[in-house]
Amino acid sequence: MAFGWIDEQARARRRTGLVRTLRPRAADSPLLDLASNDYLGLARHPEITEAAAEAARVWGGGSTGSRLVTGTTELHGDLERELAEFCGFEAALVFSSGYAANLAAVTALAPHGSLIVSDSGNHASLIDGCRLAHGTTQVVAHADPQAFRKALDTRRRPAVAVSDTVFSVDGDAAPLAELAVVCREFDAGLIMDDAHGLGVLGTGGRGALHAAGLAGAPGVVVTVTLSKSLGSQGGAVLGPAHVIDHLVNAARTFIFDTGLAPAAAGAALAALRLLRREPERAARARAVATALHARLTAEGHEAVRPDAAVVSVRAPSPEQAVRWAADCRSAGLAVGCFRPPSVPDGISRLRLTARADLSDGQVEHAVRVIGETRP
Amino acid sequence: MAFGWIDEQARARRRTGLVRTLRPRAADSPLLDLASNDYLGLARHPEITEAAAEAARVWGGGSTGSRLVTGTTELHGDLERELAEFCGFEAALVFSSGYAANLAAVTALAPHGSLIVSDSGNHASLIDGCRLAHGTTQVVAHADPQAFRKALDTRRRPAVAVSDTVFSVDGDAAPLAELAVVCREFDAGLIMDDAHGLGVLGTGGRGALHAAGLAGAPGVVVTVTLSKSLGSQGGAVLGPAHVIDHLVNAARTFIFDTGLAPAAAGAALAALRLLRREPERAARARAVATALHARLTAEGHEAVRPDAAVVSVRAPSPEQAVRWAADCRSAGLAVGCFRPPSVPDGISRLRLTARADLSDGQVEHAVRVIGETRP
Repeated sequence: MAFGWIDEQARARRRTGLVRTLRPRAADSPLLDLASNDYLGLARHPEITEAAAEAARVWGGGSTGSRLVTGTTELHGDLERELAEFCGFEAALVFSSGYAANLAAVTALAPHGSLIVSDSGNHASLIDGCRLAHGTTQVVAHADPQAFRKALDTRRRPAVAVSDTVFSVDGDAAPLAELAVVCREFDAGLIMDDAHGLGVLGTGGRGALHAAGLAGAPGVVVTVTLSKSLGSQGGAVLGPAHVIDHLVNAARTFIFDTGLAPAAAGAALAALRLLRREPERAARARAVATALHARLTAEGHEAVRPDAAVVSVRAPSPEQAVRWAADCRSAGLAVGCFRPPSVPDGISRLRLTARADLSDGQVEHAVRVIGETRP
Repeated sequence: MAFGWIDEQARARRRTGLVRTLRPRAADSPLLDLASNDYLGLARHPEITEAAAEAARVWGGGSTGSRLVTGTTELHGDLERELAEFCGFEAALVFSSGYAANLAAVTALAPHGSLIVSDSGNHASLIDGCRLAHGTTQVVAHADPQAFRKALDTRRRPAVAVSDTVFSVDGDAAPLAELAVVCREFDAGLIMDDAHGLGVLGTGGRGALHAAGLAGAPGVVVTVTLSKSLGSQGGAVLGPAHVIDHLVNAARTFIFDTGLAPAAAGAALAALRLLRREPERAARARAVATALHARLTAEGHEAVRPDAAVVSVRAPSPEQAVRWAADCRSAGLAVGCFRPPSVPDGISRLRLTARADLSDGQVEHAVRVIGETRP
């Protein structure tokens, strides 16, 4: 049978308790959400959902083609202009997902003969970008500027360093300033994925690059998602105008993909404008994360100090992590559960996300449930 | 300078007239559209745009996380159930784009040690899937079942054959029935991308696999887009339930991507329901394509006989193709223009798409403009 080999893998997953299943949620789910990446609580903000609705009505249900054929509307242009301006970069290019944006940035900026130095904790989309790129990838120790330095100290050029700004699993930050110094020293490009930084870090949520004084610096390219702090869908690459022009001409996930749906572009643009008006949301997300971490640590949990809005809590085993998350859910609390093979180091965790719109009482309630369900 | 090498490439593109530029369109663009993939004319249908708007209002601007965490709503479940049922497959899984769906299908179904046989005319996303997969890829002659047979006749297993059903560039169809016979003979899986078939081919637009009597057959997997005939954004993989379960557990572009935005899921579901109610739209798209081809050929153009809704017209050179398309645009007609490096064979074309909602008069007008602007 053609796909018979799949069944053996499925049996092995069942034996080890690693089966993943989809749990469709209702629109009025009563769960307290500490699992989503809706860091600013904007996904269901009426201003954002109404902007999505209006964009669909004005521009259509889809963008109808590649961005290079019929898939670019003036709405996409507005979003790109305002996103670049907000984050402090010369230009921006919007993709149908952050995954597509990362594939584009890495593949188009690492041609034949080039060197890619990639942090071992990078997101799957950056890893797939490295695999697809024609350059040679060297994976280096996690968040270690000296490892980047050693890898870049060769004659292989052009070279790029690739890293998340905030790592999704543990919520820890990359040594951004040091990475930039190393890249400048070796004339290497720096590609940073700020998926978990935009909207949370930097002045008014302008992101990790802005916070580090690196926004708009030559040789610096950043990718972002529109699906986390901006409560929508999609991704973008921001950087010098000549780099963005290059992506338009060379990035396969841009050229051969249908453009982002107008509703998603409209929602992201509205979220960006709201964030400009209410810059305190970014600081509130960070404050909630800090409070969550402090309370969990006080209760004796092993939690990683958050550099943005993700708080990771260590679980004793994959099976216990799964049961812990399920018990939280039964008690009305949605938390993420990361376990092998999604985690490079094999450590299972509950993954909690702070949201700017969580009240202090909700944080307290979440900490209580996590304590009561502890394995 | 870090990205200095880009500028040399940009100069080379300018010298050869191959610079791609974005042209944002207005909401009330007066152009007659024969360039989009909106084959059924549903992208701006009020029922579809209102469904997108309502989904955003009810479910939010984004899905807020991975489908495995918070990103699956009951709306996604409904779409998957109805899409599978409509196309005649056991199960379906929705992705944020057709590109992501293709990467998922190929990579998850071609493990270490496996063989992938891939048509040389396949879409970029299938090619990237082959590059990312851990199996070994053999590229074979375009639309040639004997070439597939020869490549599959080895001991390397598991094996899959991968092909578009309708090729995007020329609009020609794959030898689907023959490919299925060859795959059965060698116990190989068959992965077909029906991006340009869904909504156009088969009874009421149920797609190329349904038309060939292969929907739901064991060992057959099909990928579709929600962004063409269904006027929305996203993609899906359809197949046997155990294959879909495998993708949930193994496909990186499913596990590590934010779920499709509710507005896009809502729009696609509404389009599917509309197509069930108005099945004649599929036949009309095919009839428009046939008429367009007949009239162009009668006028002396070298056009490929369409197997679905794409009509390809040969242009003398890349530069003349670009000028021809620009002249059409100046005369009020939007047409696609495919040229190197997007076309594997180096032949430049105008790419016209038939839409079910084009009137006979609009087809006639398009043919007249294309004739008058001919280089």
